[in-house]
Amino acid sequence: MFENIIELIEENKLFEARKYIIELNEVDIEQLLGEIPQDKMLRIFRMLPKETAAEVFAEMDSDRQQYIIESITDREINSIMDELYMDDTVDFIEEMPANVVKKVLRNTDEATRKIINQLLKYPDDCAGSIMTTEFVDLKKEMTARDALEHIRKTGMDKETIDTCYVISAQRKLEGEISIRKLILSEPDTLMCDLMETVKSVQTLTDKEETAYLFRKYNLISMPVVDNENRLVGIITVDDVIDVIEQENTEDFHKMAAIAPSEKEYLDTGVISLAKNRIVWLLVLMISATFTGMIIRYFEATLSQVVALTAYMPMLMGTGGNAGAQSSTMIIRSLSLNELEFKDIFKVMWKELRVGILTAFMLAVVNFARIMIFDEVGVLVAFTVCASLFCIVTFAKVVGGMLPIAAKQIHLDPVIMASPIITTILDAVSLFVYFSFATTFLGIA
Amino acid sequence: MFENIIELIEENKLFEARKYIIELNEVDIEQLLGEIPQDKMLRIFRMLPKETAAEVFAEMDSDRQQYIIESITDREINSIMDELYMDDTVDFIEEMPANVVKKVLRNTDEATRKIINQLLKYPDDCAGSIMTTEFVDLKKEMTARDALEHIRKTGMDKETIDTCYVISAQRKLEGEISIRKLILSEPDTLMCDLMETVKSVQTLTDKEETAYLFRKYNLISMPVVDNENRLVGIITVDDVIDVIEQENTEDFHKMAAIAPSEKEYLDTGVISLAKNRIVWLLVLMISATFTGMIIRYFEATLSQVVALTAYMPMLMGTGGNAGAQSSTMIIRSLSLNELEFKDIFKVMWKELRVGILTAFMLAVVNFARIMIFDEVGVLVAFTVCASLFCIVTFAKVVGGMLPIAAKQIHLDPVIMASPIITTILDAVSLFVYFSFATTFLGIA
Repeated sequence: MFENIIELIEENKLFEARKYIIELNEVDIEQLLGEIPQDKMLRIFRMLPKETAAEVFAEMDSDRQQYIIESITDREINSIMDELYMDDTVDFIEEMPANVVKKVLRNTDEATRKIINQLLKYPDDCAGSIMTTEFVDLKKEMTARDALEHIRKTGMDKETIDTCYVISAQRKLEGEISIRKLILSEPDTLMCDLMETVKSVQTLTDKEETAYLFRKYNLISMPVVDNENRLVGIITVDDVIDVIEQENTEDFHKMAAIAPSEKEYLDTGVISLAKNRIVWLLVLMISATFTGMIIRYFEATLSQVVALTAYMPMLMGTGGNAGAQSSTMIIRSLSLNELEFKDIFKVMWKELRVGILTAFMLAVVNFARIMIFDEVGVLVAFTVCASLFCIVTFAKVVGGMLPIAAKQIHLDPVIMASPIITTILDAVSLFVYFSFATTFLGIA
Repeated sequence: MFENIIELIEENKLFEARKYIIELNEVDIEQLLGEIPQDKMLRIFRMLPKETAAEVFAEMDSDRQQYIIESITDREINSIMDELYMDDTVDFIEEMPANVVKKVLRNTDEATRKIINQLLKYPDDCAGSIMTTEFVDLKKEMTARDALEHIRKTGMDKETIDTCYVISAQRKLEGEISIRKLILSEPDTLMCDLMETVKSVQTLTDKEETAYLFRKYNLISMPVVDNENRLVGIITVDDVIDVIEQENTEDFHKMAAIAPSEKEYLDTGVISLAKNRIVWLLVLMISATFTGMIIRYFEATLSQVVALTAYMPMLMGTGGNAGAQSSTMIIRSLSLNELEFKDIFKVMWKELRVGILTAFMLAVVNFARIMIFDEVGVLVAFTVCASLFCIVTFAKVVGGMLPIAAKQIHLDPVIMASPIITTILDAVSLFVYFSFATTFLGIA
């Protein structure tokens, strides 16, 4: 994509390369800088216009940010910090070692330092941690003309001017107004007559809840207030998209029994990966010994008809898959707020019918398969298929209900995903199977 | 949330209720209307200002939309269609039966009908299907003053005016300019001097790819061009968030071996649910009989040491979980574009080390557990734990590589999720286990 530019850089024609680079989007510049040697990266970075430099800096990973801060002058740091939006500043500072943080804070003015320290205090999972403080606030008493004038004067440094927020003399959030409405209205109209009611979150509102509101109300930005309803920041939709993808990644990982982490796969070390995985593997392994106990309890039955063993993996596997299907659907519906606890009986009834339907089909197909291919009697085939029917039906109902039940007792419903459901159903499956075997086959 | 309003409605004080309702956000109005009887819903809907009515209408599910269209006059339909954004219009028309579509199209003007028909042609998975045609286009030769004047005149009906697009005389996309920049610049500057380069997609670009670009470049809106680079529409970020959540839901479902569907769980019938689930259950069930064949092959071994059976579920379960962890992580990284095919050896090497590390820990814990609690010899314990070690290591490597390999041969990597990985690993696990048993325990 950037072959020509990289060639110029390799030939040390940095000024010529710069001409093309400044035409690029900041995200592409960041990517380009990642593909060239570090010393040249630094030289080109220092040649960028300060606004672009700040935008590119915000896109970098923390290793490269640290390298740059350690290599440039105090003055350069100062100019980047000036241009960075507050949310990017805080994200960056959070990842830096103490000496770098010191160097950075030394090069920001008193007021900014105060805001940074304030923002650093918000826990990582709340709205305050992703908000920025560069927003347009308009006074209730302003006219549209005043407002536009105010925006012309101060708008350049704001993260968005598309939506402006109207506040009272005590900085309480009163409403919002879009720049579109502002432009299109009579210059003498007052803000308090133009503004519309606005959805807001508090600094400590959960990030996930915030993302849900953005999705529900199709928002582009949203104001954040403190507990006295004073406007303290805004959240923009680009950060919300990151939150959504992060939450989804977390859910995918949890559903595969992996402790969630924020780093990308290739950036995560072997030890961390092993640590994130081992705990659940151990728990599930130990739980599986319970299934072993059931087998040992029925050892006499098994030793009489060893052929029964051959159907165990199929029964456990199918039961597990059937249960995982239901639990996954329900977990996903819960996390999209499409289901609530009051729906538990609707879910049960639905899963029961779906279960009976699928279980019946599976049992019929399986019966046919056994009779055609396996050299076992009708009675064994019947035992296997009757077990299959009960196991799948049971799996569907349990898979549907456990996530809702978990949520009700304030556990993460994701805990009831495939690995746990499968482990539970393994034990149930074998118990049903062996009980049926002793009954139908007349062995004990 | 709306108790007071609902009370007023129940007392038939609709005009009084209306006063409170029009203060609400359109999403909340839609929700409120869902909670009252249909006839009153209709009456209140007809009392809404036409702009609000259109916004509320766009939020409704298709059953209610159909009911409304069938109950209101042609004139009312006309006024709603006038206000609806084109993307919402198309979404709505796609779900309606033929007679309703006819009624709607009869009440739209010729030009709109042409655009609707054009938009309906785009396949469901491409950028064209989520774009809207209400955007601000500015001519290259306009000054900032002309541009603002143009926006003042036409901006009211546009989905967004925050970013405007600059086109040539042939309607080719030349660049973009933010309303902020427009407001802040000298009135006499020309668009071609102010505009910036812009990322665009083609009408047939994949939706998922489009969402990826929004995420990568932190976009709020993006222009869509035809294959001659003529501007034909824009996509806004609120629709992209829906795409992202839909894709994620699809992935969650596919990873649990469910055929994806777009409907919410509670709105999906029992038959559809069963249909979406049965195919994979059947495939996996039949595949599991392969595992049964392995057991039958080793039946002689098993009948000599029936105690071995008790460890089968633990080995299969742990192998499956270990493999599913790796495959889930890799699948997720692939769908976030964090991994490519060229990384396959990095992944292999990483998973090998993670595998050895976790496998070793699991084996040690398991050996201790067997020696303490189970009354079997050291040799059986050793056989089980040696198998466990090999199975888990193998599972990690295979789980990590299969999704990447699948993607390379243009299969959806998600296919290599837990259910398939587990089924494959079940067979491998038992084969390893029984082979070790015949070797170490000296039975045949």
